[in-house]
Amino acid sequence: MSETREQILEEIKIQGDLVRKLKMAKESKEKIDEEVARLLALKAKLGDEPATPQKFTLKTPKGTRDYSPQQMMLRQDVLDKIIAVFKKHGGEAIDTPVFELKEVLTGKYGEDSKLIYDLKDQGGEILSLRYDLTVPLARYLAMSKISTLKRYHIAKVYRRDNPSITRGRYREFYQCDFDIAGNFDPMLPDAECVKIVSEVLDTLDIGEYVIKINHRQLLDGMFEACGVPADKFRTICSSVDKLDKSPWSEVRKEMIEEKGLDAIAADQIGEYVQLSGGNELVETLLGDEKLKAVSSAVKGLEGMQLLLKYCNAMGLSQKISFDLSLARGLDYYTGVIYECVLKTEPKIIQNGADNAEEQGTVGSVAGGGRYDNLVGMFDAKGKQVPCVGVSIGVERIFSVLEAKNAAAGIKMRTNEVEVYVASAHKGLHEKRLSILNSLWMQGIKAEHSYKLNPKLLAQLQHCEENQIPLAIVFGDSELTKGIVKLREVNTRKEEDIPLSALADEIKKRLRG
Amino acid sequence: MSETREQILEEIKIQGDLVRKLKMAKESKEKIDEEVARLLALKAKLGDEPATPQKFTLKTPKGTRDYSPQQMMLRQDVLDKIIAVFKKHGGEAIDTPVFELKEVLTGKYGEDSKLIYDLKDQGGEILSLRYDLTVPLARYLAMSKISTLKRYHIAKVYRRDNPSITRGRYREFYQCDFDIAGNFDPMLPDAECVKIVSEVLDTLDIGEYVIKINHRQLLDGMFEACGVPADKFRTICSSVDKLDKSPWSEVRKEMIEEKGLDAIAADQIGEYVQLSGGNELVETLLGDEKLKAVSSAVKGLEGMQLLLKYCNAMGLSQKISFDLSLARGLDYYTGVIYECVLKTEPKIIQNGADNAEEQGTVGSVAGGGRYDNLVGMFDAKGKQVPCVGVSIGVERIFSVLEAKNAAAGIKMRTNEVEVYVASAHKGLHEKRLSILNSLWMQGIKAEHSYKLNPKLLAQLQHCEENQIPLAIVFGDSELTKGIVKLREVNTRKEEDIPLSALADEIKKRLRG
Repeated sequence: MSETREQILEEIKIQGDLVRKLKMAKESKEKIDEEVARLLALKAKLGDEPATPQKFTLKTPKGTRDYSPQQMMLRQDVLDKIIAVFKKHGGEAIDTPVFELKEVLTGKYGEDSKLIYDLKDQGGEILSLRYDLTVPLARYLAMSKISTLKRYHIAKVYRRDNPSITRGRYREFYQCDFDIAGNFDPMLPDAECVKIVSEVLDTLDIGEYVIKINHRQLLDGMFEACGVPADKFRTICSSVDKLDKSPWSEVRKEMIEEKGLDAIAADQIGEYVQLSGGNELVETLLGDEKLKAVSSAVKGLEGMQLLLKYCNAMGLSQKISFDLSLARGLDYYTGVIYECVLKTEPKIIQNGADNAEEQGTVGSVAGGGRYDNLVGMFDAKGKQVPCVGVSIGVERIFSVLEAKNAAAGIKMRTNEVEVYVASAHKGLHEKRLSILNSLWMQGIKAEHSYKLNPKLLAQLQHCEENQIPLAIVFGDSELTKGIVKLREVNTRKEEDIPLSALADEIKKRLRG
Repeated sequence: MSETREQILEEIKIQGDLVRKLKMAKESKEKIDEEVARLLALKAKLGDEPATPQKFTLKTPKGTRDYSPQQMMLRQDVLDKIIAVFKKHGGEAIDTPVFELKEVLTGKYGEDSKLIYDLKDQGGEILSLRYDLTVPLARYLAMSKISTLKRYHIAKVYRRDNPSITRGRYREFYQCDFDIAGNFDPMLPDAECVKIVSEVLDTLDIGEYVIKINHRQLLDGMFEACGVPADKFRTICSSVDKLDKSPWSEVRKEMIEEKGLDAIAADQIGEYVQLSGGNELVETLLGDEKLKAVSSAVKGLEGMQLLLKYCNAMGLSQKISFDLSLARGLDYYTGVIYECVLKTEPKIIQNGADNAEEQGTVGSVAGGGRYDNLVGMFDAKGKQVPCVGVSIGVERIFSVLEAKNAAAGIKMRTNEVEVYVASAHKGLHEKRLSILNSLWMQGIKAEHSYKLNPKLLAQLQHCEENQIPLAIVFGDSELTKGIVKLREVNTRKEEDIPLSALADEIKKRLRG
């Protein structure tokens, strides 16, 4: 049995007194040194550092949090379901380092580059934490000279966003991406990505949703048709991107006042971006005089037509909406773009940074698009690998499901223990160990109290509190008969079972 | 259909020529501006940046690597098996941020602190990447005021080690930890950790192993008994820790020449650290005159006695060895320490940093111990939460299994596709989509070519190369009869199946 901390502290006090006494008595240096060494040995037992109360506020870094067992259980359940969908579509997993050479990320995120976390220069390479999983994928494809891949990647990414401004957002959060890389025929992989988003949302059962789709070439063509100068395409596009949060009147004002767009051009854009629909809208726009004159608009519309046809073949017609207001923030998209939003935006309470409770709405739960030029930026000869992909907004999905569980009063179990091994009286801990051993060897999830002589009532209460379905209860009287009591925790019904048949009986009860 | 890059480049060339012609002809500024805008619009289509070949060497940061689908498949398989063992013992998952306030890590790793990755000060908190999962656990327990927890945590940790010196080691690598926190009776949780290591090694089937155990109090008592001054306990302990790699003669030399230890003391240590065995060795040492006189030695030995008894009750006696040379590098251990080594050290080829192939031996595949004072270092009142845990060396295990697979010529599948939907001639891609849709809806993992009109032979070859068990083949002649051919890829046997019965037939074949 090891000494308690209190015992050691007491010994240190006594030894300290002894050393002081010797010093006051001017004893020989040798004698004093010997006793000082003993004192140091005692202090060493307390651990490698003096256990002084720590001086700084105990917290996780701003915008980050720990995940408790309860949260992890839900997260793992969600991720398992998403991975099952990805695998159903032939997805392969890859992983990349959490940091990249800073140069890899440079110039990929436009204005958002200021949100990248850099590592300190400790002599060596200059590194940054990954900002998303798309740029690392492009780097991986170029570096490994891979031209065809269907991959998924689930990992955390890092953005020095201001979590108090951007509600419910974190600086460290999971991304969950599926991408198809390769030279294929138009819209076949693009349509499958829509299908994947739809299957993920269906399997998670978090409510009605719509997958909005649009095309970057159509957006560019529309801007051109409305008289937007080419050098303003991207900045006007990012104004359009705000339409999911702001009314048209505000976006129009921004276009004209901040971005110097002609009011007539803005009003023409305003008419287009209010349109949404299905194939009939594509037909209408293909007949639109202004758009007809711009080749990229026609190409974008033809792409949409093909995409809608393929989506219909996969039973998606009720779940998608061709929406001209969808723009997506990222610069690197070159073709189709997607965004999936929940139809009934549940109000959810999120634990924001610094534990402030904030009200937030859910909004987008998935998004993505085609980016045909990103891999080429990493290839020495500029060789392109066309890519299309989607990212599932798992953090938002976690929040919705947590709120749902909380509202329904559901308390998820945090472990999977099937059997608790309880002893009825003293001195049975070694017998508990040997029974546990036989259960573990049979693949049964089992635990016991780590106390020598726990109270029976406390053991049974532990089972009820932790929703453990079965308990084994035994004392000497059972052991002499070679049996134990097998107790159903819910009903509190007990039955005598021979020790030799115990594992089989438990498996029968648990797995039918 | 979207324009190809080549088409756009061609258009840019033509438009550029036009602009030059207008300028040479001194056309009106308005007219020139209009054509320049068109030119810019065309250039914008190429993507957000000019796709110039990148200038830096394309690589992952030093000491890190990507994981390919092949590697991920093996890793996920290994981790799933380990998680199953952790869950069998009631383990709950937690997760913590990849970085911590620098202060959290300060003073926890002794000399190794220089290996910690710091983040750049970008205005705000000073942060460091986690160095292990133990200190974050201790911080989590103290911060959340949790005094009892059985948790596992599988995540990557970061050490600025020199991978070219320390062979086969990486700067980013997985740790895989199981820890039991709480005030319990002596050695009951400690013994269960040994059991967990044993179950993990058994389930992974990577060869014979032995779990060495020792006790920090016994080591300290032994040093005291041999006349080591108390202030040298830790430095001498780290010399002993080198005995797994260096012979005693070298370690002795280091103790005497570098650390200034008395030769007589070193020789006495030398006698003890050559001892290993089981309960009989504990008995012998309990009778040892020198050790008997030192209370911490006696306490350590009594702890070992108890641990061995509990291990025996769990059927571990053949798998453990009480070994006085086991020291473990980390300072924070206060009680039992473990290390598991493979008996037959396989020579493995590892892909070291910078893709240099290096020969390495495996060594330790798990380790851990008791650390009762770490949580208290984070608590404002110094409140302790005693902990004991083990860390599975998954990176080494991955290496061993990869080498094993390579030697046996095993090529693991990188996806789980069950059925490939192939078309026999042109114009069937929409029909493929609708068949795929019906399979996906039934939970069947299926894919097809993303080409409109793939060659039948190419499709069947894809199945064989990728070990896809089943293929569906159809043309118009099958469709008019309402059937498809279901092909076993291995045997190349085909059978006509009505489309209406297809999903059921596939499930029957795949899942019996």
